[in-house]
Amino acid sequence: MNQPQPAHTTHTAGRTRVLTGAKPTADLHVGNYFGAIRPAVEASHDTNKEVILMCVDWHGLTDKAKMLEPGKQTSGLLATYLTMGFSLEKNMCIVQSEIPQILEIAWYLSCVSAVGLLERAHAFKDAVANGKEPTAGLFNYPILMAADIVTFDAQVVPVGKDQAQHLEYASDMVRYFNNAVGHPVLFEPKPQIQETPLLIGTDGERKMSKSYGNHLPLFAPKKEIEKRCKEIKTDSKGLDDPKDPESCAVFQILKSFGSEDSVVYMEERLRKGTGYGYGHAKKDLFDEHERVFGSKREQYEHYLNSPREVAQLLTPCHERARHVAATVRQRVRDALGLGIL
Amino acid sequence: MNQPQPAHTTHTAGRTRVLTGAKPTADLHVGNYFGAIRPAVEASHDTNKEVILMCVDWHGLTDKAKMLEPGKQTSGLLATYLTMGFSLEKNMCIVQSEIPQILEIAWYLSCVSAVGLLERAHAFKDAVANGKEPTAGLFNYPILMAADIVTFDAQVVPVGKDQAQHLEYASDMVRYFNNAVGHPVLFEPKPQIQETPLLIGTDGERKMSKSYGNHLPLFAPKKEIEKRCKEIKTDSKGLDDPKDPESCAVFQILKSFGSEDSVVYMEERLRKGTGYGYGHAKKDLFDEHERVFGSKREQYEHYLNSPREVAQLLTPCHERARHVAATVRQRVRDALGLGIL
Repeated sequence: MNQPQPAHTTHTAGRTRVLTGAKPTADLHVGNYFGAIRPAVEASHDTNKEVILMCVDWHGLTDKAKMLEPGKQTSGLLATYLTMGFSLEKNMCIVQSEIPQILEIAWYLSCVSAVGLLERAHAFKDAVANGKEPTAGLFNYPILMAADIVTFDAQVVPVGKDQAQHLEYASDMVRYFNNAVGHPVLFEPKPQIQETPLLIGTDGERKMSKSYGNHLPLFAPKKEIEKRCKEIKTDSKGLDDPKDPESCAVFQILKSFGSEDSVVYMEERLRKGTGYGYGHAKKDLFDEHERVFGSKREQYEHYLNSPREVAQLLTPCHERARHVAATVRQRVRDALGLGIL
Repeated sequence: MNQPQPAHTTHTAGRTRVLTGAKPTADLHVGNYFGAIRPAVEASHDTNKEVILMCVDWHGLTDKAKMLEPGKQTSGLLATYLTMGFSLEKNMCIVQSEIPQILEIAWYLSCVSAVGLLERAHAFKDAVANGKEPTAGLFNYPILMAADIVTFDAQVVPVGKDQAQHLEYASDMVRYFNNAVGHPVLFEPKPQIQETPLLIGTDGERKMSKSYGNHLPLFAPKKEIEKRCKEIKTDSKGLDDPKDPESCAVFQILKSFGSEDSVVYMEERLRKGTGYGYGHAKKDLFDEHERVFGSKREQYEHYLNSPREVAQLLTPCHERARHVAATVRQRVRDALGLGIL
């Protein structure tokens, strides 16, 4: 930390450049909205920030058995962020595989990173411990992630605790590289480790996750949403019993996306109890879900089915991102003395 | 071997595409000329071949302590090949780091290659056995080399025995990738393993190599070449003794670059012996060296000091190479379904 920084960066005066990666995932759910989408959308409206929201499709390829998935899911991811109001005005919403400079910079970082460093990465060790036959892509993952960051001179990278080590690695690689070429060329990012508060799933037990099947989708058909809301596990308190919002999955899920009014309303009713059972709470949750997401279902479907329009919307983002990436790439190449001129 | 091949390749009808990599090295010597430069120059004049001669500067970065070397030595390598007559007419003389698609394709290959495969690579195992702290770049070397090959749909890759395993790996990776996407997308190269006949050094003992200091440079000043020729170790046979050309370093070095006439002449004189001592042979070697290389010294210096001219000469090569690389990249991206349109 606190390494000397390069004399010239690509930063925009008065704005902190924040990089957020999002794995291409189809059919996002309320847990994703709460943990990732809403924070990114909010940051995109913060005038002190310049957000790069990057769909990291290259990262999605490291599982050989699912190599054809990321390409299919990029459009769903982009449609979701656009629908939920990610502002393109001063920010960049981009797709990783559209920025070739990242992988060139990744090569330079790989040449200053010891094999041992990568072998000690938690994510890699976990994969091996779980009996996976790891691919070189998985092994190199921390390098690609560091390249994502430095290619855009990112200043702040908000990540969950599970990614903290990767951020340390990125700082290490910046230092290794700057030392190898003898002066500061890459910009060191500041990690912003976030305690991502877990959102409970519809089973009332585990973290909301598609792999547990306990998720509440964002844009599924109305009927399915209604059914999912009704299925949420609750305790056996009766209609008129006072209920504890803190231990009530219906309330916790509402809190993750609902308006302040809707949250205050349900909290009061649950505590009081009288005439307000879990059935009412589920109905209120469903109504609020319809208001927040259901009302945007058509917009989402439109983006999902209009790849050309989305590509066009994002053209200025990709142009700016490539400009930044090309500038950093040139800085790196100049430092290494590469190229025929 | 004999995998199904992609329906569309970038090949030129009637020509076999041959890929040759050359590490950027300054001050090339007669051993390099014999083992690499002459074969590539000759192939470039073969109308049945389309040669891609690639200065592999990215490969040169895998030794962290010497990261600033490749950039400095590219111009010397290019100047040497151009001076010695590498024909640009139907071939491509290019610099690896000018073709960004290679590293993108390398990422895709890394995602289908097991870590274990790379751990078993001889070159990597040797480095570890020699107590080197290997970089991830060295570890990933076989992937980059495979990417060099497939990015250009190379059909034939002539390599020394020490590179045979890397060629097998390239074939393996092609198969893994084609299997992962379900149809042939990458073209499988044919290795051409060459017994590179060793050239003896001026010490008359070991292989000619700059690291042994027993090399005869191509374009050093005339005085230095003369001195080097005089220093060549010979046995103690007298002026009039019959001498054995096979065990004579002077003759062996001459054979590696001299005209047929000059070789026949020296061979006869040595066998006969009478009035032809090693001093005469060394003088003849020097004269032939001056004729073959010395006469081109000015041309070499000119190229070396005219980076703009060289870059311009190679512009059509890089344009064609990028066109091929972009076509293959698109084939790969289409197979993976990547991109926002």
